[in-house]
Amino acid sequence: MSTAGQGQNPLFPRILGHEAGGVVESVGEGVTDVQPGDHVLPIFTGECKECPHCLSEASNMCDLLRINTERGGMLHDGQTRFSKDGKPIYHFLGTSTFSEYTVVHVGQMAKINPEAPLDKVCVLSCGMSTGFGATVNVAKPKKGGSVAVFGLGAVGLAAVEGARVCEASRIIGIDINPNRFEEAKKFGCTEFVNPKDHKKPVQEVGFLENSIPYTLLNFERVIAEMTGGGVDCSIECTGSTQAMISAFECVHDGWGVAVLVGVPSRDDSFKTHPIHFLNERTLRGTFFGNYKPRSDIPGVVEKYMKKELELDKFITHSIPFFDINKAFEYMLRGEGLRCMIRMDA
Amino acid sequence: MSTAGQGQNPLFPRILGHEAGGVVESVGEGVTDVQPGDHVLPIFTGECKECPHCLSEASNMCDLLRINTERGGMLHDGQTRFSKDGKPIYHFLGTSTFSEYTVVHVGQMAKINPEAPLDKVCVLSCGMSTGFGATVNVAKPKKGGSVAVFGLGAVGLAAVEGARVCEASRIIGIDINPNRFEEAKKFGCTEFVNPKDHKKPVQEVGFLENSIPYTLLNFERVIAEMTGGGVDCSIECTGSTQAMISAFECVHDGWGVAVLVGVPSRDDSFKTHPIHFLNERTLRGTFFGNYKPRSDIPGVVEKYMKKELELDKFITHSIPFFDINKAFEYMLRGEGLRCMIRMDA
Ligand SMILES: [Zn+2]
Ligand SMILES: [Zn+2]
Ligand SMILES: [Zn+2]
Ligand SMILES: [Zn+2]
Repeated sequence: MSTAGQGQNPLFPRILGHEAGGVVESVGEGVTDVQPGDHVLPIFTGECKECPHCLSEASNMCDLLRINTERGGMLHDGQTRFSKDGKPIYHFLGTSTFSEYTVVHVGQMAKINPEAPLDKVCVLSCGMSTGFGATVNVAKPKKGGSVAVFGLGAVGLAAVEGARVCEASRIIGIDINPNRFEEAKKFGCTEFVNPKDHKKPVQEVGFLENSIPYTLLNFERVIAEMTGGGVDCSIECTGSTQAMISAFECVHDGWGVAVLVGVPSRDDSFKTHPIHFLNERTLRGTFFGNYKPRSDIPGVVEKYMKKELELDKFITHSIPFFDINKAFEYMLRGEGLRCMIRMDA
Repeated sequence: MSTAGQGQNPLFPRILGHEAGGVVESVGEGVTDVQPGDHVLPIFTGECKECPHCLSEASNMCDLLRINTERGGMLHDGQTRFSKDGKPIYHFLGTSTFSEYTVVHVGQMAKINPEAPLDKVCVLSCGMSTGFGATVNVAKPKKGGSVAVFGLGAVGLAAVEGARVCEASRIIGIDINPNRFEEAKKFGCTEFVNPKDHKKPVQEVGFLENSIPYTLLNFERVIAEMTGGGVDCSIECTGSTQAMISAFECVHDGWGVAVLVGVPSRDDSFKTHPIHFLNERTLRGTFFGNYKPRSDIPGVVEKYMKKELELDKFITHSIPFFDINKAFEYMLRGEGLRCMIRMDA
């Protein structure tokens, strides 16, 4: 979960991991929502069902259980449930799933269809839901519409999957790594643009509507020309501020919606001429695809069961737990999308 | 119409004026939508009903008849319909309503209920629809919600009127001129904040969520404290970039929507930390309150006829045509809201 990366205070030793599926072994006192034997996805952000955010239809940013990268223990007593030689081992994102057994707050568990294969639907507990939800819940392209997805990593490809499910007619993938284009085609991308192919010095670039000087690279202009004025919606999955600005400025005036998913650095700044808003563009951000973990994720699992949503293509590797360091190597080399770590092996 | 002010090329002599109501005297060849005797509001921006914007549910930015401050003649032949001593007098915004007779493209005329008093509903042809529509069509506050309106001029007060009609429970008026507060109360404002009362040097100010340094004045913090985290929606009606930034940053995370109405200067820049978007805030801009001039404005007139919308309170002065220069004096002194100029006097 990329949200956790930047600005995080190190708290070690710690059991990492947050994208997983599992079976409930036992429950604490007072827990009634799940029972031993239930199949669950632990989620890095929770849903208390009582706070203003949980009661709002629009939000999934629970006041009580919102993602907290700095909390190392359980919510109610601050204590860890892991230790070694009498010394505490801290939790991570309330999930700590690089472990055969873990302890998770009931508010961070989505109880799912027990028929669903855990080694597939586990990817819905973070990145795939984030990208897919950004498209289907927030950008909401219409059938036949055009969608630009910035960044063709796993989250971006999940946004592409959302555009495919919404029956967008054009899905434009944008990435500075041309190697990603072949893979993205399999996910439904119809066109590709590499911003590096469209750099021009500022002075060669024209003027926007209303005589606003166009001080950026002419990349948005390229998208505008491809699409008769801009895409219907765009989804930004890189976290780069320049990509955010491009994603916003490349949507069509009158109805375009840009959705920010990628997490920025601490000192970043989003900057644009306000006329782009006045010309009826919308800019929104989303967190975990606007899904409420407990209320909504079981339904996304059902979509997979009904074959409305494809997940298997995101799982490019599978290794036994004792080989877990290989998974980090794949990630660091940018190889594949998701590596499934088998706990039973 | 404030949109016309900045960056406009002077084209003189010209008949100004664009907020008006009238009766059709005659129609050109091929015009079937209006007939002599019809009551109409000329609108500074048109609706061709055929272009992609007119066919889109979301947009009112007609490709053919979108506001054009530089066009001095009729659309189809570029010629003026006014002259003096054989020399052309140019049109303005396709309306030129500071005149007893004018010539307007049929795509820029809303045909309205002939029972509606033209000396009242005329204000719907620009500012009042802009502000009212920004609230009811774009911000869409829920019953019982909280709304902040930046700038308590006529457009801002029309946004306040929209919040009243939506039954918002808190309507926070924001203006640097404290004299505007008494009047705004009559329009339904429940609270007032003057940003000048809340200036603090940056170093006295705290940190936002996720440790983002809070480099602005602490004005948004004041709004957040008043409202338990931020308003449900805000409407920016000043055109000041700083007010736009405040209007965006003062909405609640999870569900807050900020709407930009005020028109910026040519060199302005909207700047914020992208985390505010990621935390599920939405920023949109609107033009003419997202109303389609011909399709929607007749219905707004009906709202007035059914007393669902109050307009009389916006008309603070009324003078005969030969006194028109007094109206400019009122405007320059910031006195009152709208001055109705009577052509029959
Ligand atoms: Zn993740
Ligand atoms: Zn909650
Ligand atoms: Zn106006
Ligand atoms: Zn049109």
